Parts: sequence; C-alpha cells; structure tokens
Amino acid sequence: MLLDQIHSPGDLKQLDACMLAPLCDEIREVLIDTISKNGGHLASNLGVVELTVALHRVFDSPRDAILFDVGHQCYTHKLLTGRLDRFSTIRTEGGLSGFLRPEESEHDPFISGHSSMSVSAGFGISQANALLGRDGYVVDVVGDGALTGGMIFEAFNNAGRSRDKLIVILNDNKMSISRNVGSLARYLAGIRSRTGYVRAKNSLKRGLSRIPLVGPPLRNTLYKSKTLLKNMIYNSNLFESMGFYYLGPVDGHNLAALTATLETAKQIQQPVLVHVCTVKGKGYSFAEKNPRLYHGISGFDVETGDCMFSENSFSAKFGEYLCSLAVKDEKICAITAAMTEGTGLKPFRDRFKSRFYDVGIAEEHAVSFAAGLASRGLRPVFAVYSSFLQRGYDQIIHDTAICGQNVLFAVDRAGIVGEDGETHQGVFDVSFLNSVPNLAVYAPACYADLRYAVNNALYRDPGPAAVRYPRGAEPELPDDFTVRDEAYSVYGDSAAPVALLTYGRLFATACQALGWLKLEGIDACVYKLNRIKPLPEGLAEAAAAHEKLFFFEESLRSGGVGEHFAAALLERGYRGAFHLTAVPDEFVAQSTVARALEKYGLDCDGMVQTVREGCR
Amino acid sequence: MLLDQIHSPGDLKQLDACMLAPLCDEIREVLIDTISKNGGHLASNLGVVELTVALHRVFDSPRDAILFDVGHQCYTHKLLTGRLDRFSTIRTEGGLSGFLRPEESEHDPFISGHSSMSVSAGFGISQANALLGRDGYVVDVVGDGALTGGMIFEAFNNAGRSRDKLIVILNDNKMSISRNVGSLARYLAGIRSRTGYVRAKNSLKRGLSRIPLVGPPLRNTLYKSKTLLKNMIYNSNLFESMGFYYLGPVDGHNLAALTATLETAKQIQQPVLVHVCTVKGKGYSFAEKNPRLYHGISGFDVETGDCMFSENSFSAKFGEYLCSLAVKDEKICAITAAMTEGTGLKPFRDRFKSRFYDVGIAEEHAVSFAAGLASRGLRPVFAVYSSFLQRGYDQIIHDTAICGQNVLFAVDRAGIVGEDGETHQGVFDVSFLNSVPNLAVYAPACYADLRYAVNNALYRDPGPAAVRYPRGAEPELPDDFTVRDEAYSVYGDSAAPVALLTYGRLFATACQALGWLKLEGIDACVYKLNRIKPLPEGLAEAAAAHEKLFFFEESLRSGGVGEHFAAALLERGYRGAFHLTAVPDEFVAQSTVARALEKYGLDCDGMVQTVREGCR
Repeated sequence: MLLDQIHSPGDLKQLDACMLAPLCDEIREVLIDTISKNGGHLASNLGVVELTVALHRVFDSPRDAILFDVGHQCYTHKLLTGRLDRFSTIRTEGGLSGFLRPEESEHDPFISGHSSMSVSAGFGISQANALLGRDGYVVDVVGDGALTGGMIFEAFNNAGRSRDKLIVILNDNKMSISRNVGSLARYLAGIRSRTGYVRAKNSLKRGLSRIPLVGPPLRNTLYKSKTLLKNMIYNSNLFESMGFYYLGPVDGHNLAALTATLETAKQIQQPVLVHVCTVKGKGYSFAEKNPRLYHGISGFDVETGDCMFSENSFSAKFGEYLCSLAVKDEKICAITAAMTEGTGLKPFRDRFKSRFYDVGIAEEHAVSFAAGLASRGLRPVFAVYSSFLQRGYDQIIHDTAICGQNVLFAVDRAGIVGEDGETHQGVFDVSFLNSVPNLAVYAPACYADLRYAVNNALYRDPGPAAVRYPRGAEPELPDDFTVRDEAYSVYGDSAAPVALLTYGRLFATACQALGWLKLEGIDACVYKLNRIKPLPEGLAEAAAAHEKLFFFEESLRSGGVGEHFAAALLERGYRGAFHLTAVPDEFVAQSTVARALEKYGLDCDGMVQTVREGCR
Repeated sequence: MLLDQIHSPGDLKQLDACMLAPLCDEIREVLIDTISKNGGHLASNLGVVELTVALHRVFDSPRDAILFDVGHQCYTHKLLTGRLDRFSTIRTEGGLSGFLRPEESEHDPFISGHSSMSVSAGFGISQANALLGRDGYVVDVVGDGALTGGMIFEAFNNAGRSRDKLIVILNDNKMSISRNVGSLARYLAGIRSRTGYVRAKNSLKRGLSRIPLVGPPLRNTLYKSKTLLKNMIYNSNLFESMGFYYLGPVDGHNLAALTATLETAKQIQQPVLVHVCTVKGKGYSFAEKNPRLYHGISGFDVETGDCMFSENSFSAKFGEYLCSLAVKDEKICAITAAMTEGTGLKPFRDRFKSRFYDVGIAEEHAVSFAAGLASRGLRPVFAVYSSFLQRGYDQIIHDTAICGQNVLFAVDRAGIVGEDGETHQGVFDVSFLNSVPNLAVYAPACYADLRYAVNNALYRDPGPAAVRYPRGAEPELPDDFTVRDEAYSVYGDSAAPVALLTYGRLFATACQALGWLKLEGIDACVYKLNRIKPLPEGLAEAAAAHEKLFFFEESLRSGGVGEHFAAALLERGYRGAFHLTAVPDEFVAQSTVARALEKYGLDCDGMVQTVREGCR
C-alpha cells in the first residue's frame, strides 16, 4: 500500500508522479470504507482527492497554511498529514475530528465546521505572516456553496487590495449541501460552459507578467495588440472585481493540470482565486449519482450503497406537519439555508414550490428575508440547525423582534448533536434566544408537542417564535401521560415534596428517573415546560410549593432557562433547595449523544443520582 | 415655503418640475437647522435630497415600498411623507425616530438601523407581493458602505434570479461611516472614472429590449452587429454577475437625470441596480469638506460649523491606552468595522498604520480575521459598538472561543445609548457574551478600570476576552474609593446587612445611593464587579453574608449577570432577600440615557427607592 508510506506531506513529495493515480485510488478506498462505518461526509471528500494531493505536492504544510472551509472535505488532508493510523477513530469519542482541529495536528491551521469563514481566517494568517516577516502561502479551499455565505465577500473585499500570498481554491462541484442556488450558481455555470481558450491563454500571459524580471516585457508586447479586448476580459470576472487574480477553470481530477495551475498561482504577487471543477462523490458510483444522499451520512453498505434514512425524526415530522398546514394556509412559506433534506423540508419543496426558498448558506439573509415576507402578512418558517442560527442573531433582534414580525424559527438539531463535535452542538440557542424580547420559545418533548408548538407559534403568538427540537426521533413517554396544549404540565404527584423540572427530550428521561426514585423511596413529580420563554405563568408559584427542586437542561447553563427560573424563585423568597444540572461553561466534544448526556449528568442515572444526593 | 404644502408624496408629484430645486434648498435648510439642535446624521442626509425627491416623484409610496438601508439618509423621506410638523422632535423621547420605523408611518415599510439588510427585507417584500398578487415596486436605497457587509451579497444571490420589481439604488458617496475601504471601493471608483458612453448607450438599448412588444426587435438589430463586444460588456459588471441589471452611474444631484434613470429602471423586468453618485454633505460647505466629522453628530453651530467632540470619553481613553501599549508591543493590532472615529481608534490608525485594519461594515469578517491574526500569535483588538457585535456572535463562538484565540473585543456603546433608540442599544452583549465558553468579560466603572481590564484581557487571560464600556465619559467615583486591579471590590462597610451589587458606570450611581440610604438609616455597601464573566471567585460567598442583596444591571435581565448570580446564590442555599433590577424583556426606546436609566430604576433615586422598599 502506498498510503502506508506517507507520514507527512514530505513523503508525498517524494512519490513518483506516476504513483499518484494509484495513491488516489487507495485514498478513496479508505474513505469509503471508513465513512461506511463511522458516518461522515462522503461525497464532498471523494471529490477533492486529486485536489488535496496536488495541494500537498505544490505547497509546503505547515509552513504554508492549508484551510478547508466548512471542513466537509478535509479527510484526504488528514490521511496525507500523518493521521492514517488514527483514521478509523474519526468522529468517535476521543478520536479524530471530522473537521479541522488545530489541537489535532500542526497541519490544521484553523478550526473549521461552519461555512464561508476560512478566507477571513486565512487573510488573518497571511497578514500575520506579513507583519511578523514570516514566509508561507495561505491556501483556502472553499466550495461553491460557501460563496452563498456573505461573509466570504467581506473577506474578499478586505483581502483583495493586499499583496498577500493568499490563494483561494474554489472547489466548484455545482453543489452545496442542498442543490446549489441563486445567481452565483448561474454565474459559475456560465464560466464553466464558456470556451476556455481565451481565458487560458490570457491566464498564462498574465501569469507570466507577474513574474518579476521575466514577465513584464513579454506581457507588454502581447498587451499592445488587443488592449481593449484584454481590458474587457480582465474586468469581466466577478472575482477580479473583488481584487483577486482569477485562474481557471481547471479539471479538478487532472493532477497534471492542477499541479501546473497551482504552481502558476504561487507566482502571482497578489491574492489569487483558482477555479477548480470537481465531481462530488467521484469514484463511488452511488455517491456520484446521488451526491446529496451521500453528503453527510451515518453509515452505509459499501456494496449496495444502501443507507438508512429514518422518517421517524423530529425533522421529518416537522416537515410533514408544515405541509399539512400549508395545504390549508397559503400564507405559509418555508425557508432553508441550504439544508432542504436535513430540515425535513423536501416534501414542502416538492409540493409548494412557489412558497419554498433555499437561500444558500445564508442565515443572515434568511432571517431578514423571512421578516420581509412577514411584514406583508405572510407566515414564513425558517427551518435551520441550532448552531447555524447563531449567524442570524442580530437579524433576529433587529429585523424580526423589534417590530414583532411573525416569523417561525424551526430550530433543528437543538441540544447535543453528537459526532460532529464542538462546532455543531445546539447548546447555545436557548441562551441567545432567551435574550430576545418579544420572542416566544417552545421546546417540544414529543411529536404531539411539536405540532402544538408550531401551531401556537404560527397562529397565537403575535410576534416571532422559535420551536426547538433535537436531532433524531421522539423518546418514549410514559403510557399514563397525556400530551396537552399547555404552557407547562406536571407528570406524577404534584403534591410530592420533590420536583424535577425540564423541557424537550429530557422530559422522557426525567419520567424514567421518577420510577427509579420511587423505588428508593423518594416521591417526586416532573414539570415539563412546553414554552420556555416567556416562562409559563404560575410556574414559579407552583414549583415553589415543593421542598426540593431539580432543574435539568440540555443546553448551556449560562443564560439558560434554569438560571432565569432560579432568579424568579429567589426573588419570590423561595426557601427550598434548588439544584441546576446543565451543560457547563465549556464546549461539548464529539461523542455519541448518549455519552455526552451521561457526562453532564443528564441521563437517567445522572438524574437519579443528583436527586438522591440532594435528598440525603 | 414650498415644503409646508407637501403633506404626502402625492403633493410632491403635483409640484411643477421647476419648483424642485427651491424645494431641495428648503429641505436642506430644515435638515441643517434641526440636526444642529437635535443631533443626528447630517452629511448622509444632505447627500440624498435630490435622490429622495426623485424617488417620491417616480414611485408611489406606500404602494411602492421605499427602504433606506441603515437609515442614516431617511430624513428627507420623512419630510416628504407628512412628518414635517413633527420633525423638530426627531431623536427625542416620544418623537420621530432617526431611522425608519413602521409604527411611525405607512411610508416606512421596514425597520432600519443596522447596515446591509435592506435588500434581504426588500426581497421578502417583493416576493410577498408576488405571492399575494399585489402590485408595487420595492426600492432599496443602500450606501456604498453597505456593500462591504456580506449579507447584501446573500440577498443579491437570492434575488438575482427572480423577476421581481426590485430596484436597488446604490448611493455611492465614496464614503461609508469611516472612509471607504477594500477592493469594492476601488472597483466602484473604476466604474465612476470610466467613460460613460458605451455603457449609457448600452443601457438604453437593453432598457428598450426589456420592454415587451417594442423592445426585442430593436434590440436584435443592434445585437447582431457587435455580439461579442456586447456580451463582454454585459458580463463585465459585478452586479450583473449577481443577476442584477445595471444602470448608471448617474449624477445624484441632477434631478432630470435621476428621474429619467428611475423611469427606465421601472421598465426593466428583472431586479435592477441603479448606481447613483452623490456628494456627502452636499449644500453645507463645512459638511462637504469634512463629511466624516458631520456623519453622526450631537449638534453644532450652523454659522461656524463648530461641533464639539470630547476627548473625555471611554472611547478616547481606550484608543489612547491602546496606543501606549502598542508602542511597546508590536503584536497589538487594531480592527474596526467602519468605525475608526467612533471607537477612538483614529490615533492608533495614524500611528500604527500597518497594524490597523478598517474592514468595512463587516463584523462577521472582523471577528474571524482577528481570530486568524491571533492564531499566529498576534494580539488583535476588535473595537466595535455593542449592538453591531451582535453580527459576530457565531464567529465569536466558532472561530474565536473554541480554540481560545487571544482576541480582545473592545465593546463600545455598551448599555443604554440614548437617542438612536431600539436598534442601537447595547443591552444584549452581556447576555450573548455570557453564553460563550472560554471568554472573559470585564465591565470597567472608570478609566482606571478600563486600563486594568484591557491589560488583563491582553496579557493574562489566555483566550478571548471582552471589555465593555459605555458611550461618554467616566462618572465621578467617591473620593475615598481606590481603584484596584481586582476581580471585584467592595465600597463601604462590608459588614453592613445590605449590599448593592453592580458593574460598569452604575457603580458610581450606587455609591451615590449609598449616601442617601445612610441618611435614611439603612447601612449598606456596594459590590463592584470588575470581571463579570466568569464571576469572581469568592463573590457568592462574600455576598451571601449579607441579609439583603440588591443587584443593579444596565443590561438585559434575561441572561444577564444578575440571573447567573441568583442561581449561584440559590444553589448554595442563600436565605436572604434578593432583588434584581435590570432592563426588562423589552426593547429600549429612544430618549436621553438619563431618562432611560430613570425609567428602569437604574438611576440614584430608583436605587434608593428599591432598597428602601426592600428593607421595609
């Protein structure tokens, strides 16, 4: 095996060029095999095997910093930078991250996970190099989907006037997480379809002209003949308008072409954008045919390509319910930021095309666009992962809440998400949404709750509202519990001296704990908060009747519901015991969801133990 | 007076064209006179007088929705839409807002205050019109500075493929809030300097071609002759790459040219960008010469142009101190998002040009760029207004805090800011920063505290830190209080039964209240929290020794320090009285800072009253 012999990019550079194709085959085998077991991002990683090999042949990591935007495509980079032996641990507790993590390797210069930020970080690194007098290129690999996130234009604008050794590789696979959208996708398609002749020739000319001493005279000769035409072509490119030198498009699976183009890019004394065209899923026929399905997956059968997608999830049920409402209510619109499948909106898209919007990886815009729709009386629903809604915080406050626009935020992947780790945990939304006036927040514990919450948010709350629910399926609730449309409800003997309070999927866990506590002689009941903001009327009064209160929260402690509730209790002179269990002031590392809940005392055993100790 | 007779845009349309120039003169007089008294945005408003008149002549508000991005330039719009009689109340309590406010007039279709969001909201409105079958154009007036905010590109990308009646007016005055920056500014300068002939001719041709029935044949004839050339020009524009039809540049002070261009824009069956060139401060020589000085001001002498800028402010002292550190420490860099003057960074820019970055109105990028600099060992300081840092929340978490990058956020305008109203209040940062692990937050009460805090943030805290301070000058502290570099300190008799706890500028108020309480026979002391996150060690223990605790916070209650502290007290079984006074779950309306503090019980009288009642 060739891959075995590569412990660093230096080893890769020693390899004879004719060995690179077999090496790429080996890499693809490892990728398919590992991801089929551990889950992860398959299609995007298969698309950049040659590109990553070429990058490590041409550049010199870690002196040259290579950043992968989002990080969905960094697996080959990991394999080539000494992490083959640990690769089978990817996305497991204590194992390799599925994204770039500086603490993991000196070859990961900056964290990744969220989209469109790598040029900002990259320009920070290149400016630091300039200020500190250090050598080295900065290479940012960004997908075409990342171009739909506005932040990257902020970086282009800032970096475009510099002379930094900053090379942005546009990995154009015609595909962000969902299908690609918007005018930029059309623009890129236009570039791809144009005949390459003039541009390639021009690129060469310009490439030459930037090389000191040799270049300029040659360039001048060529220049005089067709000044006007050249000027027009020179100005014809979006990226050149932003101050970047444009090279491409290049076939991203042709190692020779890639290498030559990257070598040219190194010669140019200004920021460069290299446009590389790749095929998502390349080399695995199932993924090539259906790259969306194999974007982020939980494992699959290598031989048959079978991968299980469950219809039994909060996401799917949300999508179904929204469709059933939209049939009757033409004012309902659905918005996604490049997550049609993940947020369960595929059925809505298929049935209500004119009212469905995929805005790209553009959460800021999504929020304000929704507010614009709402300002004219529509009922927009923005379905978004909790950790990505962080991007829309200002827009929730400024554009949505101040004027009380009736927008529904369907906050998916709320709470612990598991294997994607720190960058994707949905543990901040409760805190940041709690601080938004005029906003209502619901935390359903089951599908029936979800329907009540969506209904209330759309038709009862006058202003904006959020409904937050976890990844995966509803947990099993006790048979003797009836779900009702209430702001909060109590399970068990409400006259018991001890009460557990919680919301969301932890309610089921608390009910389980109740049984164990009973066996130990501790009589308790469980308060289930359906609406967590504003706190239900009468809740503090009712809870204050108990001698001991235990609050459990699958969210950050700081700014969460528990602290808010504690202040209310203390102000009303509560004299009983209060104990709050929540995610502490730290980032939640990758592991299974179950393991993370256990770690923070939010599983059944943890709850029982906390209450037991509190009742001693 | 002509302006007297204009009660609605309809009246304006009745006016003979030859009366428009005198009308514009009258408008400028009112603007200069009112802003000289009430303060506000002078230069930007003076620049768009003709443009606004032309808009209301050509479009039909409120059927056509006219949005002003940021809102620094909406005063003429207010004067022409029936608000002349209330115009003298602008920026005062209960008076007109200095920005668009839908509750104020049907001619204000959407809120404004923050930058770069109006195309998102506008596209929401135009899509709502389309879905609801309503007629009407949407016009977004955006400054060239707003183009540096990435969110607008997200909106371009989403809107560019529609056929909506969406017209973006690019008000290019070569100036955002600070001087304009980046590659886009250079690009726009390139367009402005190019000869207008080909483009103007082409614009006409293409304008014609979009008119149904008449257009296409004419277009086709012209088209055949110069297909290649035309294609190149067609593709040569950044905005056209984004799917917008480009018209311009037009002289923004030529009413006839403006009107004709806007009429053409109405004929085009796709989103249009109209590039209008204006002069910031037009018609008031002092403002034309120094538009930055007259951007946002507190009042000035009309005859002499004199306006007072105090060097006695937290902003100025921060800037001075940072310079004094930067002399010794070459690793310090300063970053602003188009707020060089406002954040006190002008001296830094003048002295340390190579380490100073104005990134444009691009808070997302600013945060991640800073994190990039920090990842290579530099000490970046991002100085930013509290309400604008909301845009960088995700980047603080994802790019900065997870890996513990040593970035200092200098959070200016923290707390109540006064006359700018709901959109600019700095009452959220404590809550949203409280929810970020690995981050330290300081809240200096005076300049000496500020220096300690900056020093700690840069040199002691290993990860990111924020220092938040209010607009204006330090309040007077008691003579017998000595400022020390401690996480918290106590003023008065620490054995007193009653304690007031607070941070920031409210400490001075609480000390004042102490004197009054003493006169009433109430013995109390004041806890001054210098670091508010993490809470100082020993604070809860020390405070728990008092019988009654009163927490005062110039920040949102929800997610604030008081709630966090209350939970800690309750968990440790505190049995005394606790009362929390903070900004409640609502948006803070415009008024003077003093009035707002009074309203929320955060002035001296309010504190005395709260404690008195709590001690009955």
